[in-house]
Amino acid sequence: MEAPIPQFAHFTNPLYLDSGRILEPFTLAYETYGQLNDQKSNAILVNHAFSGSHHAAGVYAGEKRAGWWNDLIGKGKGIDTDTFFVICINALGSCYGSTCPLSLRHLEQTPYRFTFPVITIADMVRSQKILLASLGIDHLKAVVGGSMGGMQALTFAKLYPKCAEHIIALATTHATSDYVIAAHKIMSEAIMRDPCFKAGNYLPKEIMETPLSGLAIARMIGFLQYLSPQAMKKKFNRNYVLNDGLYELFGRFEISRYLDYNAQAFCRYFDPLCYLYLAKALSIYDLSLGHESLQDALKDLQSQVHLIAFSDDTMFSIQEMQEIYNALHAHKKACTFTTINSTSGHDSFLVEVGLYDSYIKNILQP
Amino acid sequence: MEAPIPQFAHFTNPLYLDSGRILEPFTLAYETYGQLNDQKSNAILVNHAFSGSHHAAGVYAGEKRAGWWNDLIGKGKGIDTDTFFVICINALGSCYGSTCPLSLRHLEQTPYRFTFPVITIADMVRSQKILLASLGIDHLKAVVGGSMGGMQALTFAKLYPKCAEHIIALATTHATSDYVIAAHKIMSEAIMRDPCFKAGNYLPKEIMETPLSGLAIARMIGFLQYLSPQAMKKKFNRNYVLNDGLYELFGRFEISRYLDYNAQAFCRYFDPLCYLYLAKALSIYDLSLGHESLQDALKDLQSQVHLIAFSDDTMFSIQEMQEIYNALHAHKKACTFTTINSTSGHDSFLVEVGLYDSYIKNILQP
Repeated sequence: MEAPIPQFAHFTNPLYLDSGRILEPFTLAYETYGQLNDQKSNAILVNHAFSGSHHAAGVYAGEKRAGWWNDLIGKGKGIDTDTFFVICINALGSCYGSTCPLSLRHLEQTPYRFTFPVITIADMVRSQKILLASLGIDHLKAVVGGSMGGMQALTFAKLYPKCAEHIIALATTHATSDYVIAAHKIMSEAIMRDPCFKAGNYLPKEIMETPLSGLAIARMIGFLQYLSPQAMKKKFNRNYVLNDGLYELFGRFEISRYLDYNAQAFCRYFDPLCYLYLAKALSIYDLSLGHESLQDALKDLQSQVHLIAFSDDTMFSIQEMQEIYNALHAHKKACTFTTINSTSGHDSFLVEVGLYDSYIKNILQP
Repeated sequence: MEAPIPQFAHFTNPLYLDSGRILEPFTLAYETYGQLNDQKSNAILVNHAFSGSHHAAGVYAGEKRAGWWNDLIGKGKGIDTDTFFVICINALGSCYGSTCPLSLRHLEQTPYRFTFPVITIADMVRSQKILLASLGIDHLKAVVGGSMGGMQALTFAKLYPKCAEHIIALATTHATSDYVIAAHKIMSEAIMRDPCFKAGNYLPKEIMETPLSGLAIARMIGFLQYLSPQAMKKKFNRNYVLNDGLYELFGRFEISRYLDYNAQAFCRYFDPLCYLYLAKALSIYDLSLGHESLQDALKDLQSQVHLIAFSDDTMFSIQEMQEIYNALHAHKKACTFTTINSTSGHDSFLVEVGLYDSYIKNILQP
């Protein structure tokens, strides 16, 4: 696969948000892999998770690390770029190039910061549809995503019931649980209570140089959900850092060192205001909002829905995925539900691609 | 039951700690309920959990709120104070009156703070044994405790194999899991990274007036383990705070308000340095430390061990309790293991006493 090149689409028409507010203009960063065919019928929309970006596959020129779903997307892979044209869009509100709280306000030279409107998962999806339309794509072979990306995929199916042939949602839910809301509440508190966050008025350059403690702690809390207890045990097994004294107060287990390392790294590429807005979007996500029930919310769906749950996902349970299946099944909608026997917790959809890529390949067979 | 009165025992002999350091002198705060019989044969040691105290039962004169295990301990209750003499001791390192990081150093007028030695669960137990001996008690009817209290109970059985007739350990483990270590690592980071913690040199009075954000966040993270996802759903069910706008960034779900309220309250009675030391004690706890295996560690036990697990405990799993049972069973030790069908997560051992109190009463029958 050629080195992907990030692209930016600018839209001047207003985007009407669930909150009643308007975003104008707005920008979406995205990448594409493979070739769009003449009929424009081979496009697949891939949605990233909370801290992900539009860089889903391939390796940038001069870099080593591949995109976050490189095991799934590429030549001959589960989502085969010889057959499909894959597009991944940075979610509205995220910090990789799409319009977000750090973007400059219309006609002003100051960033939105806390004047940025709350973005919902549905708002993200509406912006995606606008970008697809601008590329002349009005039909999708599939919408695919895990975690927050799965929320977008399911929301896409609800908002545009005839647009996608397949919806493939992994490790996700129909309504964020109190448990996940609680975790994101605590992450947000950690960020907002950090004096260096300066009530949202930090200078991005400063916090890149001196990582924001609150953001580091938020990221660490995230790992309590991304890795299951079993996954942590498999990975760390109570190993203690060599040379750290067991009876030294600051002596560390390997799991602690892992958290330190990853949290510090995270602070160098993620923005705390974006974190707060994405946490809000994720927390208030509820497919059945404005409907009598989940079943009612899904009654118009025409896409084939494929639900892939992971056995040791402690963030979004199998039960929550089962509830989506049940709601669709009650309408006799075309729907499949499979549970992958995983060992990496919620992150299994990212790191255990080999367990389900052939399943996806099979769904997408022409 | 009469209003309990906290007591304080002062010991001038050195306490030799696992770390190789010495604590001298040291004080233990404790309470007792019921009457010690002439043979001194009816004593039961009850151990509190991480944030608990020696105030296990009864109501202080002029107060309304009862001790933390008041549903279990009292006249005619599961642990019947008409029959038994119950003693509960504030763990060494905790902030309710026993020697802790805020205690004054020997012959000095300054508190230990970070010069305080690391305390282990076994150190706590050794100090308990010294207090019991000072009361003339060398035999116990039982040692009972949940969570960190259960760790102490199991450690008591290992250190003093002939002392207690029964060991009753609830919602606990034989070795703290990486997952629980991770959570306590993050809690500790939240405290230490708070500038108002002043690297341990805060004035206790100041942080009582202005709650320490880091401690509040630590407490919130605790709830991710104390309440299971199911327990949160049962309690909050995604309810949103009335008058908070759904599309306001700072609008809250009820679970978030619950976390805010409880975290703020916690800061008024718990100390952050003690939190760090107890988190360390809990994290490095491992019954099999210094032994070939858990089975080997438990080979000398003579107490009857009773293990009570809770079905929706996400902090200490049924599997971990099962491993203790298996290790004891391999030695053909007297041991029972029961799982309570609970709905309040790890906290079930505190709030669903009615589900298991008769089970304990039955164990303790003369």
